Amino acid sequence: MASKVREKIVAAAMDRFHALGYNAAGVQEIVDAAGVPKGSFYNYFKAKERLALEVFETYMQGARFDALKDQSVSPTVRLREHFESMAANYAHFGYEKGCLVGNLMPEVSASTPVLRDAMRDCLCDWTKRLAAVIREGQADGSFIPTNDAEQMARFLLDTWQGAIVRMKYTGTREPIDDFFAVAFPALFVRR
Amino acid sequence: MASKVREKIVAAAMDRFHALGYNAAGVQEIVDAAGVPKGSFYNYFKAKERLALEVFETYMQGARFDALKDQSVSPTVRLREHFESMAANYAHFGYEKGCLVGNLMPEVSASTPVLRDAMRDCLCDWTKRLAAVIREGQADGSFIPTNDAEQMARFLLDTWQGAIVRMKYTGTREPIDDFFAVAFPALFVRR
Repeated sequence: MASKVREKIVAAAMDRFHALGYNAAGVQEIVDAAGVPKGSFYNYFKAKERLALEVFETYMQGARFDALKDQSVSPTVRLREHFESMAANYAHFGYEKGCLVGNLMPEVSASTPVLRDAMRDCLCDWTKRLAAVIREGQADGSFIPTNDAEQMARFLLDTWQGAIVRMKYTGTREPIDDFFAVAFPALFVRR
Repeated sequence: MASKVREKIVAAAMDRFHALGYNAAGVQEIVDAAGVPKGSFYNYFKAKERLALEVFETYMQGARFDALKDQSVSPTVRLREHFESMAANYAHFGYEKGCLVGNLMPEVSASTPVLRDAMRDCLCDWTKRLAAVIREGQADGSFIPTNDAEQMARFLLDTWQGAIVRMKYTGTREPIDDFFAVAFPALFVRR
């Protein structure tokens, strides 16, 4: 029963942070959405920031980082499936809701250091994992070898982030389609 | 004298919207920063949204759209100079302040329809102007011909937007350098 309450809080918080961002989603709003008494919140979480951290980590599992390491799949396909799995999540939540992390990011600051550091570490780790796949693709001749793999990885994430901003703004998948149509071939050796 | 007051309000609003976004920059905060009495605000602007519209239009002049039409300059150089002139503006304001338009955008909604429509029109117009340059570059053989020019233009703006988000987050020019190093060559015919 106790863990049910905790799960309800995390699920409600994920929805509220996604829809409203960090500051506008207050503890009262979250417990109301979860249908649990406010007092129970502090039994499970020291502060809203700790809850946001857990929401962030849960949400990021949707990016399926482990699949990026699966060497039984070609680097090209692995990279595409990674971004397609995230696109499927956006479709599930509704394009106009944007990315939960992208929505939280502008509000993450010196006053939320735990969340800020977790996001920074995640972005850094994400870049490294993408760079590893790109390096593999450069080694097997499928990716263009001229660019630094870390730089290409940073570029891919920036481009994805920009596409997600427009996805939210327009409520459509068009920016994701543009990403796959233009950014992706740019990484590959032209044949 | 009267126009001096107006200029002071616009300059202060540009700074406050840039730093705080739309909602957090209240009329009181703006007139305080401008050093003018609050009453004078409504002599010049019907509402905060009208002021934001003027700030937006003034800021966008920094993108120097007219230079995109200058056919005495090659499409390649024209495109690079366009983005470099915006990068110079970001350097001037400080990378950690991000892009004024990017900072306002997440808050632009159904409750600010004039601003929302102006931003939408501007983005649409900007894409068309970039597409025109790309089409010229495709015609003269310097840009790769395989992608639709409008799609490449949308892609460039998404990538730029994503780079600007990270520029603000890191307070560095690295994302802009990545943009020029990876996104730019991706548009050009490899020689």
